[in-house]
Amino acid sequence: MKLASLPGPGPDGRLIVIDRTVTRGLEVPHIAARLQDALDTWTDVAPRLEEAYADLNEGAGFPIDSSQFIAPLPRAYQFLDGSAYSEHMSVIRQARGAKLPDGYAEVPVIYQGTGAPMMGPRDPIIVPDKEGLDLDFEAELIVITDAVPLGASARQAERHIRLIGLLNDVSFRAFVPTEVARGMGLIHSKPLNAMAPILVTPDELGAAWVNAKASGRYKCEVNGVRIGELDPGADLMFSYAELLAYAARTRPLAAGTVLGAGAIANKDRANGCGCLAELRARQTLEGAAVLSPYLREGDRVTLAMYDAAGRSVFGTIDQTVVTQPTLN
Amino acid sequence: MKLASLPGPGPDGRLIVIDRTVTRGLEVPHIAARLQDALDTWTDVAPRLEEAYADLNEGAGFPIDSSQFIAPLPRAYQFLDGSAYSEHMSVIRQARGAKLPDGYAEVPVIYQGTGAPMMGPRDPIIVPDKEGLDLDFEAELIVITDAVPLGASARQAERHIRLIGLLNDVSFRAFVPTEVARGMGLIHSKPLNAMAPILVTPDELGAAWVNAKASGRYKCEVNGVRIGELDPGADLMFSYAELLAYAARTRPLAAGTVLGAGAIANKDRANGCGCLAELRARQTLEGAAVLSPYLREGDRVTLAMYDAAGRSVFGTIDQTVVTQPTLN
Repeated sequence: MKLASLPGPGPDGRLIVIDRTVTRGLEVPHIAARLQDALDTWTDVAPRLEEAYADLNEGAGFPIDSSQFIAPLPRAYQFLDGSAYSEHMSVIRQARGAKLPDGYAEVPVIYQGTGAPMMGPRDPIIVPDKEGLDLDFEAELIVITDAVPLGASARQAERHIRLIGLLNDVSFRAFVPTEVARGMGLIHSKPLNAMAPILVTPDELGAAWVNAKASGRYKCEVNGVRIGELDPGADLMFSYAELLAYAARTRPLAAGTVLGAGAIANKDRANGCGCLAELRARQTLEGAAVLSPYLREGDRVTLAMYDAAGRSVFGTIDQTVVTQPTLN
Repeated sequence: MKLASLPGPGPDGRLIVIDRTVTRGLEVPHIAARLQDALDTWTDVAPRLEEAYADLNEGAGFPIDSSQFIAPLPRAYQFLDGSAYSEHMSVIRQARGAKLPDGYAEVPVIYQGTGAPMMGPRDPIIVPDKEGLDLDFEAELIVITDAVPLGASARQAERHIRLIGLLNDVSFRAFVPTEVARGMGLIHSKPLNAMAPILVTPDELGAAWVNAKASGRYKCEVNGVRIGELDPGADLMFSYAELLAYAARTRPLAAGTVLGAGAIANKDRANGCGCLAELRARQTLEGAAVLSPYLREGDRVTLAMYDAAGRSVFGTIDQTVVTQPTLN
């Protein structure tokens, strides 16, 4: 099934089930007012949400204006982000002469970022009005879980993957080397993220969801110029289930945990890049005289993923950069 | 005023205002059902909660059983933890021959930990049944904010400190060196945390809250043996306002952000330690033949802070270690 959220009355919005063609929807306050409520009691409420979805696909519901959708999960209790595409890490670190994290191919690299608030798909990317922050997007595919028990195996964790979506992991590249060197992870480097408007259950992806990896054509553009057209399933070192099991090794994960696998990157260079840092790193390694710029005021980032039939699965993240004076 | 939460019906419990002597309370569903709801609209609801508090102190309300209290904020959208006591970092790193983070005395060191679920004050510390995890407590004082704007100055951020409390930042020391070396922060090292039962507004601390630092006598015991009796305000390198401003430099902070300043440590060694790692590090540096052990099955940790008159301000964190077999 497909889920989204409408704005208000509170910061978490109202859960809405939408039909397969994203033309009609049903609000479901009698089942779960907010998506978080549904995740808190997923095994109880999912069958009832699926019934609403079946009704919608038989013509029930009301016309929707998907431009009104906010982030489907407007506040997440946890955002864990892996860096599970070797191409992304290796190209970028090679270009700046930095070493790769110890054992990155055997042991997942995961940091904890901020999950609240989650920007909506059309929210501006608001950044401090300062030079040299090196603002970037990262095209990510995310999963959302209900409660994952402490010490769950990958097989167990996979059963807790309830929803799949897209995320723009907004990044300030200027802070990454310093923050990594200090060892405590990414605070200044990783501001708020944006979610694509639609979440889908794994079954909705059909054959494109295999062994907790998703395939498709993930298109990234800046100001209408293609930066990448990537397959998120092609070169992923760890499945989402393996990443979850890693994260749950010493603690349970709360319902509503959002897990990403990092900026999507393919070994096939014809596919382009899932962020500007990787594009610039490739240009550096190729000896380019001028690098593609990082994002600037007014730049527009669009991210969307298409299935084998060319249909957009999650809707579009479409954000424009806006600067704001700050005191700090 | 003083706030706490009672269990159920949902995972966030029910907000209760309690009187100054922690003997009577008033549930306030007509004002805010959950503490998160109050934080979401703090400037609107706080005056009404203060009215309830005033009524309680004049004899209104019902007798309470404080042993029923769960974590006052059972799920936090963000837990940011500084390492702002130089004594803690320097002693521990010196003992294991590791260097201090670059510029730690000028630029705050902060990582993002897990804020959901927050363990209640009497919940067991459930850990995987494995050898060599080096389980430790960390005695911390925390602040909770409403929404802090992007780029807030320390002075602005201070106005968003709405509540103060205590936290046991449970840690697996065995993973820290590896996770710090990888640069991406602490995942396995930092499982779930526990909160003391009572949160108070800054005014409640009176003269013990000055320039966004809290003073008092923070007592830490393991199995009834004193590990430390620390003053959290004495040797704090950055105020809570400065730490918040640092965290908000590139992003706004969601209402319900919990910020710690790390394991409390004093330069006066007579005060003891706020965690076992520091105690062991001191023993190592003093050439002790046998070190105090890390926490083991059945060990009991109690943390509480007392004001100048010897009254417990936040209630007691009282947890016992329980191991659990896991598959991962």
